[in-house]
Amino acid sequence: MSDKSTLRRNITTGRWVIYAPSRGHRPHDFAKEDKKKRALPSHDQNCPFCPGNEKALLSVLYQMPSNDPPGWKTRVVPNKFPALTVDGNPERKSDGIYLYMEGYGEHEVIIESPQHDIDIAAMSPQEVLAVVKTYSSRYRHLRSFHKNMMIILFRNHGPTAGTSLIHPHSQIIVTSFVPQHVRLREVIAQRHYDTWGRCLYCDIIRQETSDGRRLVAENDHFLTFVPFAAEVPFEMWIMPKAHQADFGDISEEEEESFSVALQNALRSLREKLGDPDYNFVINSSPQYRGGEPHLHWHLRIMPRLTTPAGFEIGSGVTINPSLPEVDAAFLRA
Amino acid sequence: MSDKSTLRRNITTGRWVIYAPSRGHRPHDFAKEDKKKRALPSHDQNCPFCPGNEKALLSVLYQMPSNDPPGWKTRVVPNKFPALTVDGNPERKSDGIYLYMEGYGEHEVIIESPQHDIDIAAMSPQEVLAVVKTYSSRYRHLRSFHKNMMIILFRNHGPTAGTSLIHPHSQIIVTSFVPQHVRLREVIAQRHYDTWGRCLYCDIIRQETSDGRRLVAENDHFLTFVPFAAEVPFEMWIMPKAHQADFGDISEEEEESFSVALQNALRSLREKLGDPDYNFVINSSPQYRGGEPHLHWHLRIMPRLTTPAGFEIGSGVTINPSLPEVDAAFLRA
Repeated sequence: MSDKSTLRRNITTGRWVIYAPSRGHRPHDFAKEDKKKRALPSHDQNCPFCPGNEKALLSVLYQMPSNDPPGWKTRVVPNKFPALTVDGNPERKSDGIYLYMEGYGEHEVIIESPQHDIDIAAMSPQEVLAVVKTYSSRYRHLRSFHKNMMIILFRNHGPTAGTSLIHPHSQIIVTSFVPQHVRLREVIAQRHYDTWGRCLYCDIIRQETSDGRRLVAENDHFLTFVPFAAEVPFEMWIMPKAHQADFGDISEEEEESFSVALQNALRSLREKLGDPDYNFVINSSPQYRGGEPHLHWHLRIMPRLTTPAGFEIGSGVTINPSLPEVDAAFLRA
Repeated sequence: MSDKSTLRRNITTGRWVIYAPSRGHRPHDFAKEDKKKRALPSHDQNCPFCPGNEKALLSVLYQMPSNDPPGWKTRVVPNKFPALTVDGNPERKSDGIYLYMEGYGEHEVIIESPQHDIDIAAMSPQEVLAVVKTYSSRYRHLRSFHKNMMIILFRNHGPTAGTSLIHPHSQIIVTSFVPQHVRLREVIAQRHYDTWGRCLYCDIIRQETSDGRRLVAENDHFLTFVPFAAEVPFEMWIMPKAHQADFGDISEEEEESFSVALQNALRSLREKLGDPDYNFVINSSPQYRGGEPHLHWHLRIMPRLTTPAGFEIGSGVTINPSLPEVDAAFLRA
């Protein structure tokens, strides 16, 4: 690996990424002591998500029952400090040259377990599957309202990834508009389809499978790989191998396969890098685009090991000190 | 200020920003103890940027001499861990469906003072002017090479803003391509010009001046304001009141005016918010576009008081807990 920098173009967004190996770091340099190994209680009486503290919740929107032990496996509750609420009116208003609107949308929290000190990486396979089934069930419910133009399902792990609550949880934010970020990705995928007659993401799967250097794992239905133009060290994408635009269309069989892939990816971060903070997000099709031959949902994991700074703010170009092939080999090993 | 959220559209990028006051925070909640008040030495013998430690520098590309005391006011040196270097060849190569290229470009560090423990907010007006004149002189030099398609001048202040070196410094990264981020801003500005026959940014200045609620300061040549769709709390833009596409075209008189505006903005952050970490970046026109009637350079200051998380990664939409009018009133007070 030379010390010279290389640039790679993210084919799904059109953005260039700068690989600057001279700026750092071999893979193990990113590893640190596992901070999550400090003892946490399995139940915290001050935690709003722990069983018995329901008075701290606004309501329970959904829960997956458990027989043994009696109670619940997962629970969905409204975010107490919502970014968006259903009583807003998304009609655009103007103030001179500017546009604004009230914040219509939904903001839900998925409590992934009654247990305070567990994490997806450490759960039993059945527990991870319950989380994934809660994701898809909630996703389908929210998709059924036609005002819900975009459903963003994400997980923030650790303080530098933007979460302060330890109890394992994910979130869903629904917006009444399709963000430009998503539209841009869609326009690029559509152009690829109109040009080549093939789904861009299916093409990526084909190339990653035949190349192999960036693969991290593969099972019956999912491929896990470091993308060619990863924006951050150890970025991973988990993508269905069969064409599927909308996460809500995942089958029961695929849910099982996906939960295994997800847990393995998070476990490799935890075991090989000392449980770094990370975000993950499901990039799925906007409302009404679930049938498109050019869209293809995937989960994107972004470890928080680098700090975007002024250059990234000004250019939208990321500097990544680590090459995807090196990261993938490290995660596979 | 109601607890309900509002969305505002950034007219220069097309991105919506969510204002969610229920998620936090009145302006003074962001203030913290001034961490920079801890005593630092004015000279550090281990600092590569302090006078006398020139052996730690690769070379000196430029310096602004000082007579009293004898020596230098500012200095420009190559970045020791450059993201890009001039020996790269920006010819595109392909690997299957992907594109990549060698990293051609420049990466310079502007040492803003021989003094280790000073900051722009605390300098004399003459010292700030020396920094600004170094910016423009270096910018013009780099603009003179036609391969240098984009010049990004930025400053990272504090560890969460991506800097580890205390000695006051800014950076310039030059790329051989125009980032999509910059092109998108340009396309939007051009569409506004083609539609209305006016520069979008001149229109913003007109509206901000007549509205007044988001103004922070104004002097002969510059307006400082919190933008209508600020992405983060206390974001500020410093913009020339007269149309000017290219930062390199700043006049001597404007340099003085700009250095006063810059110092006042940074001082207000330091004094009112306890010296938060921040990034600033100059958004200027790409190479060959300095004459465009639809582009208009400005400096953008982004305090690091919030943490973008999974939702921001997935949607490109920012959640800001603080309203621009409230922030501007706090900064003005």
